[in-house]
Amino acid sequence: MTVTTIERLAEHTDQTVTLRGWVYNRTSKGKLHFVMLRDGTGFVQCVLFKKDVPEELFEAVSRAGQESSIELVGEVKADERAPGGYEIKVTGGRIYQLVEEYPITPKEHGPDFLLSRRHLWLRSRRQWAVLRIRDAVITSIRSFFDERGFVCIDSPVFTPAACEGTSTLFEVDYFGDEKAYLTQSGQLYAEASAMGFGKVYCFGPTFRAEKSKTRRHLTEFWMLEPEVAFADLDDIMQLAEDLVVRIVQDVLRRRRPELEALERNLATLEKIQGGFPRMTYEEASQILLDHPKSEFVAGDDFGAPDETILSALHDQPVMITHYPKAIKAFYMKEDADDPTKVACVDMIAPEGVGEIIGGSQREEDLDKLLASIAAHELPAEEFDWYLDLRRFGSVPHSGFGLGLERVVGWIAGIEHVREASPYPRMMSRIRP
Amino acid sequence: MTVTTIERLAEHTDQTVTLRGWVYNRTSKGKLHFVMLRDGTGFVQCVLFKKDVPEELFEAVSRAGQESSIELVGEVKADERAPGGYEIKVTGGRIYQLVEEYPITPKEHGPDFLLSRRHLWLRSRRQWAVLRIRDAVITSIRSFFDERGFVCIDSPVFTPAACEGTSTLFEVDYFGDEKAYLTQSGQLYAEASAMGFGKVYCFGPTFRAEKSKTRRHLTEFWMLEPEVAFADLDDIMQLAEDLVVRIVQDVLRRRRPELEALERNLATLEKIQGGFPRMTYEEASQILLDHPKSEFVAGDDFGAPDETILSALHDQPVMITHYPKAIKAFYMKEDADDPTKVACVDMIAPEGVGEIIGGSQREEDLDKLLASIAAHELPAEEFDWYLDLRRFGSVPHSGFGLGLERVVGWIAGIEHVREASPYPRMMSRIRP
Repeated sequence: MTVTTIERLAEHTDQTVTLRGWVYNRTSKGKLHFVMLRDGTGFVQCVLFKKDVPEELFEAVSRAGQESSIELVGEVKADERAPGGYEIKVTGGRIYQLVEEYPITPKEHGPDFLLSRRHLWLRSRRQWAVLRIRDAVITSIRSFFDERGFVCIDSPVFTPAACEGTSTLFEVDYFGDEKAYLTQSGQLYAEASAMGFGKVYCFGPTFRAEKSKTRRHLTEFWMLEPEVAFADLDDIMQLAEDLVVRIVQDVLRRRRPELEALERNLATLEKIQGGFPRMTYEEASQILLDHPKSEFVAGDDFGAPDETILSALHDQPVMITHYPKAIKAFYMKEDADDPTKVACVDMIAPEGVGEIIGGSQREEDLDKLLASIAAHELPAEEFDWYLDLRRFGSVPHSGFGLGLERVVGWIAGIEHVREASPYPRMMSRIRP
Repeated sequence: MTVTTIERLAEHTDQTVTLRGWVYNRTSKGKLHFVMLRDGTGFVQCVLFKKDVPEELFEAVSRAGQESSIELVGEVKADERAPGGYEIKVTGGRIYQLVEEYPITPKEHGPDFLLSRRHLWLRSRRQWAVLRIRDAVITSIRSFFDERGFVCIDSPVFTPAACEGTSTLFEVDYFGDEKAYLTQSGQLYAEASAMGFGKVYCFGPTFRAEKSKTRRHLTEFWMLEPEVAFADLDDIMQLAEDLVVRIVQDVLRRRRPELEALERNLATLEKIQGGFPRMTYEEASQILLDHPKSEFVAGDDFGAPDETILSALHDQPVMITHYPKAIKAFYMKEDADDPTKVACVDMIAPEGVGEIIGGSQREEDLDKLLASIAAHELPAEEFDWYLDLRRFGSVPHSGFGLGLERVVGWIAGIEHVREASPYPRMMSRIRP
């Protein structure tokens, strides 16, 4: 008997197959059980007529509560009315475990209740859909860079110092000798890697001990950071745009049932085709200053409400460039035309999602970089190794960071990034 | 003028191209400079005749020390004698930065000197080769699982408790409220994920605060952990074998220049074709007890010298199964035929490399698992969420862990795993 999975049923129409999974839902009517089976790859309705299956199986299924584990053997029938387009006419099977009183029922539960049961909540159709989209985004990102000749060079998690200030760092006791800190960004290391490998990316967990409880924040999240030697701001903006278009296209192609399960508006995603609108910080500022609902103050960084206003103006992500030097990180390259600005870009996703990418050309001049480190009151000695990159074969180079959970949240159309992480970590949550 | 990279020179034979990179080596003879250029994708010899290039370029190159950054324009000439098969007949170019006294010279340096300059050491041909192989291994692993319908579900780094004991955990102050620990293994979470998604893997950094300084240990290393619902030990052994064969084949196909730069014996890698020898712990024990040089004590776990003896018997990795329950982790499934053994497997790589994979079928019976937690004197309350997986739809399932740096070290043929990590972290090293 062919053992297969729900996502491959189309290959077995009118054949008898074995499926293994869990009871997602069951309705029984006298001599009939309807079992909505899930196996991790999808959901399918399985019909058990009393006359077609062994008596002990029929009886056992009558006691099979939500999440009972089960093997079902049956014929694959195409059925347009069925979700997924197939139904299983069951002829046999066996129970692994009968479950009663599974704690997560189809009724509404509060987020705390569900987050405390994340190991089980993952089995719900909605979480299944979001995290299968996350998987497709990860694969899309890695394929995109591999195909373009980028080399994956992982930046370390343990770092001796902060990349952008120390207030939001997690501290680790490192063998009692000294303190290590968990990385907030792999960028500085990625810059060193780019000098060795040309085009690189790192993609791993990063950490921020921010005491904020917004829908955009996790203490542990995955960040993708490509870094390209000999690339300028325009190059890296094109790279970022190409990447985002590719990710959305791959998800639309590979995860349509999941997007539909989330009732995602596919039309809005299908508009992500490239040619993203671009504007400078000054242009974006003027839009906000002219906007009746904005509280934006000239010269400040954009807050979440500002980003919402700017993103609502366009169907595609907006790229905003050339922010004031004073509000951006020390390593960003001074703009050639206006020394008060830096050659940087933030990409704001549409639908009010906000920033998903931040990048810049990096300052490659040793003296300017030293001055910037001093101006930001950072400890120059901790950056001595990084300064070596400007002493020994410095070249123009650029890169950006993309927050995985924010991108997944945007594409999946979910409100809070916590659902875009398999086991989200927040200020008051490290369990399960 | 076409800007290209060294690895793509074959597409531009007899054309004029622009290359951007760094001086890896320079030899000058009167009216001639030979520049070995590296650009991160490869190495190529560039020839500058005084009469063919602008006078100021020829003069500048005469002062270009190792790691000077440079753009060279020239004609791509096929040349069988040249490393890589091509040479550049330079006609123009420009200097980004002239470097003198680059700290890492072609002479021998000690490991401490080099590790302290890891951000520069990455540029050496050997490190370039090892880490490009690492990149290919990562891509191979992710492609293998994606093609087989596995879903990447990342396990968290922050965990509330230890998976296998607490003595080698790194402790983190989590907002002053409580302690978090850095994960040693994503497995327990991967098991929960497998119940939601069927076939999953996690692949990220893991941490061990081991006070050991051997050539096999890092405090931070990447681990791949697939976990498969409805799979038994045999299934997971076949999966592990298929994976290792695929990785080696992909590296042989995609990273031949790098393997040659490392003077790796390709014939030994080409023997990795599948059909790995298998033996039980008892059979392996008998071999060691009969071996004149072994100090193995019956019933113990195998040490590094034991693994060396066992691996030397075969050209391919050896899979050793059914270890005594007493020396293995609490979650391993009791062997059906012998309750003193568990259904587990260790894969020992050849050439004295030692263990690269450890896996098992997992105990799916709640009561047996509770007894095992008690026998291992672990705090049952910390595992309550994990026990839920046996309460709500428990199914047979299996998985394994693969240590990335050990696999890369084996394939690259290097002695110490520290070279298989871009920025290795060890007991006495978190810098740069």
